[in-house]
Amino acid sequence: MSDTSLFLTAAAELLGERGFTTDADLVSPWLTDWRGRFTGKALGLASPANTAEVASLVKLCAQHGVPIVPQGGNSGMSGGATPDDSGEAVVLSLRRMDKVRAFDVDARQITAEAGLILQTLHETVEPKDLRFPLTLGGKGSATIGGLISTNAGGTQVLRHGSMRAQVLGIEAVMADGTVFDSLQPLKKDNRGFDLKQLLIGSEGTLGIVTAATLRLLPAQADRAVLWAGLGDIRDARKLLLHAEKVAGDALEGFEVMPRHSLEAVLAHSPRARAPLAERHAWNALIELSADASAVDGLPDLAQNLLESAFEAGLVADATIAANETQAEEFWALRDEIAPAERAIGPAMQHDISVPVPAMAEFVAATVPKVEAEFPGTRAVAFGHLGDGNVHFHVLAPKDAVPGEWELGQGKAISQFVHDEVTAWHGSISAEHGIGQLKRDELGRLGDPAQLAIMRQVKQALDPLGLLNPGKLVPLETTDESL
Amino acid sequence: MSDTSLFLTAAAELLGERGFTTDADLVSPWLTDWRGRFTGKALGLASPANTAEVASLVKLCAQHGVPIVPQGGNSGMSGGATPDDSGEAVVLSLRRMDKVRAFDVDARQITAEAGLILQTLHETVEPKDLRFPLTLGGKGSATIGGLISTNAGGTQVLRHGSMRAQVLGIEAVMADGTVFDSLQPLKKDNRGFDLKQLLIGSEGTLGIVTAATLRLLPAQADRAVLWAGLGDIRDARKLLLHAEKVAGDALEGFEVMPRHSLEAVLAHSPRARAPLAERHAWNALIELSADASAVDGLPDLAQNLLESAFEAGLVADATIAANETQAEEFWALRDEIAPAERAIGPAMQHDISVPVPAMAEFVAATVPKVEAEFPGTRAVAFGHLGDGNVHFHVLAPKDAVPGEWELGQGKAISQFVHDEVTAWHGSISAEHGIGQLKRDELGRLGDPAQLAIMRQVKQALDPLGLLNPGKLVPLETTDESL
Repeated sequence: MSDTSLFLTAAAELLGERGFTTDADLVSPWLTDWRGRFTGKALGLASPANTAEVASLVKLCAQHGVPIVPQGGNSGMSGGATPDDSGEAVVLSLRRMDKVRAFDVDARQITAEAGLILQTLHETVEPKDLRFPLTLGGKGSATIGGLISTNAGGTQVLRHGSMRAQVLGIEAVMADGTVFDSLQPLKKDNRGFDLKQLLIGSEGTLGIVTAATLRLLPAQADRAVLWAGLGDIRDARKLLLHAEKVAGDALEGFEVMPRHSLEAVLAHSPRARAPLAERHAWNALIELSADASAVDGLPDLAQNLLESAFEAGLVADATIAANETQAEEFWALRDEIAPAERAIGPAMQHDISVPVPAMAEFVAATVPKVEAEFPGTRAVAFGHLGDGNVHFHVLAPKDAVPGEWELGQGKAISQFVHDEVTAWHGSISAEHGIGQLKRDELGRLGDPAQLAIMRQVKQALDPLGLLNPGKLVPLETTDESL
Repeated sequence: MSDTSLFLTAAAELLGERGFTTDADLVSPWLTDWRGRFTGKALGLASPANTAEVASLVKLCAQHGVPIVPQGGNSGMSGGATPDDSGEAVVLSLRRMDKVRAFDVDARQITAEAGLILQTLHETVEPKDLRFPLTLGGKGSATIGGLISTNAGGTQVLRHGSMRAQVLGIEAVMADGTVFDSLQPLKKDNRGFDLKQLLIGSEGTLGIVTAATLRLLPAQADRAVLWAGLGDIRDARKLLLHAEKVAGDALEGFEVMPRHSLEAVLAHSPRARAPLAERHAWNALIELSADASAVDGLPDLAQNLLESAFEAGLVADATIAANETQAEEFWALRDEIAPAERAIGPAMQHDISVPVPAMAEFVAATVPKVEAEFPGTRAVAFGHLGDGNVHFHVLAPKDAVPGEWELGQGKAISQFVHDEVTAWHGSISAEHGIGQLKRDELGRLGDPAQLAIMRQVKQALDPLGLLNPGKLVPLETTDESL
């Protein structure tokens, strides 16, 4: 038997029929990312039932030199869970491992396996008047393991931080099959390097997250959702600072969208209605939140925020959602931007961040710069202003040929945007990760000192290079002039 | 010239007279830790003026194979900044690098060099109605760099987290002299491994922190300080959960101390007065905090907390400090425990944590267990119950000979306590770090898988082993039976 056959036989024996398959019909759905941008090949699909099986499989892969592509909900944005087209790797799905191992209501902690789906987590803790303070569009498929591996963000980062801030402990299988276990959460532990921090956001290139202990918060007892019309993106920054001052910890979300995005949503969603009578160059969506201990003061707080913002001349017009239905309608306007913009035509999308204080100026400067450099395009920035993170979309000129444009001018536009972001000391990946989509751009624009450290750490923890190869860690630059 | 002479000449040339000395009078104060527990020797004392000089010195040390012991305020608890007695190392003091490089009041961020003293940081931001939410006893000498390298804690961790939670960005010099720079803080950045997290708490063994960007919070506008008498440590846990429910984010501190500690402070400090008429087995000190946005509701909140705790039968007696002077007196009772206990006689001190929900049970079980195992001793646990972190002191029997006892029975007691902590899934270093004090205990009790990963990371980032050797990272175990 060839070594590959030996591996396949051993893997099937190890994981059983439910745990390992090479059946193309069963494997192929997991070889393409959900947006259909990346497709690869694989030896087979492994779906271990528990951490011990993951560890045994990883050891087996190490013995046979078989690369491993860990996969959660397969709903990532950067192709990080899709194998390359060599067909040499095995896809390691964590979806079968979806148990809640422990749930301490008093301590507000839950320990769940990597395959637990985000929405299921929300539904698990809600009956206990608790909430998990992170959500995003893909919550119906995104898994805890994937969220940790990509350090996922969403619309609540402003107040509660990204996935990193929710993780109290991790269990992971390292490249040699040993199990790293920090699931017992210690609020204070100074016994050396915080290795779990290294695993968070490493996209499966340093270890495979198999379980995590997560923090929970008291349920949201009430919220107030405000919509404000603004003349200038710089006013949004001022309004954000004002809201932080007035509302303090009650400020849960602060999103912005330009007029173009609102119009796109209104055109795309027949039921969508504009919250304000007039149109404004910019719109801000603000959410104030209160748990049971603060719920009584919330309406006054929202009213105060609005009135003081008017008095300070920070808003052109504004309104507070009258009820929860209207609050959801306001948020739907925000959530519909991406599909609405997609319906218009081809666009290059960029998930970027710059230092929070600089974001308004960055948008004000970069939108016209991009449109001037690439005539006929339209640049649209929307999203998490309070996090210094916007989704910067550049829509194709009217005559662009979909499919062709992205590979030609589109690529040049992305490089241009990434160059600008880098000049503003920003990040070319704020919340979507690097994966295979941006690996080469990270290699081109990343700080050489930081890239060198990344490669040293990768080499130390995965010397055979079998954990999610081709993702995240840029190749060594080879100077072709030599 | 010998290689050592060559190094000394080159270092003196590089750093100049203010930056490098071998004068024993100038060097020797920095060769012993502030508590006088560890003393070492050194080739000389380097005090670079800026990051470029640190980088050049590190390169020079790498060339000559000279170990480096980074040092901040020299006020650590674990000997992490004291050289060994080989005399081969150079002490690298960051104290000269104490500039504030940037201070953005709106964004609530400050960028400071590693040598800035904590108290100076506090005084720098206070005039702008901001605060840095971390403080500790050594604030008059502790530096930003040292606080980051040890991931320092304190009495505000319950609400605001330890030093790790305050750090938005870091600048550090790596073992090969390259500069790692993440000072421009991005709230969201998913460009791979979060290397700054690896440097925080690594005690100078992976890199030398030269500057950091730190988050600031709105100033505390008012506080309410409560003192409660309790019959049992388990009631303290219940009271904590109750306080979290009633006060939410306003709960800033929750400390406990047993009757013995209070008596010790009252005996030791002539001006100290007990807050309650009766003595109780346990005492809880609770601080509620409000910034300007929440200050109006604070007195009611404190009153509600107290009344509802009485109604629920959680406290035997309790009081609210009538004014700021009394609030400070309550806190002084807490802060005086360590010196008061020291005045009684020799004691073994342990800075330990267990999972927060288990701390009360741990104390209730372990205090009598230690006292039974070592007759004549008295075990006293006090401190940060809300963080799952207490300082667990074991006082010597009356006939113990100071100086001898610590090395004999004292050592056995420490191992016993550390064994118990480990059995409870806890940490032998909650907030003081490992340094040289606990390195061998970490080697004895640490998870072998985690120790292996630590060594791999250390080897990758400091292959010559020149950064703070002998600290933190346990030696490889050599199996003597082979």
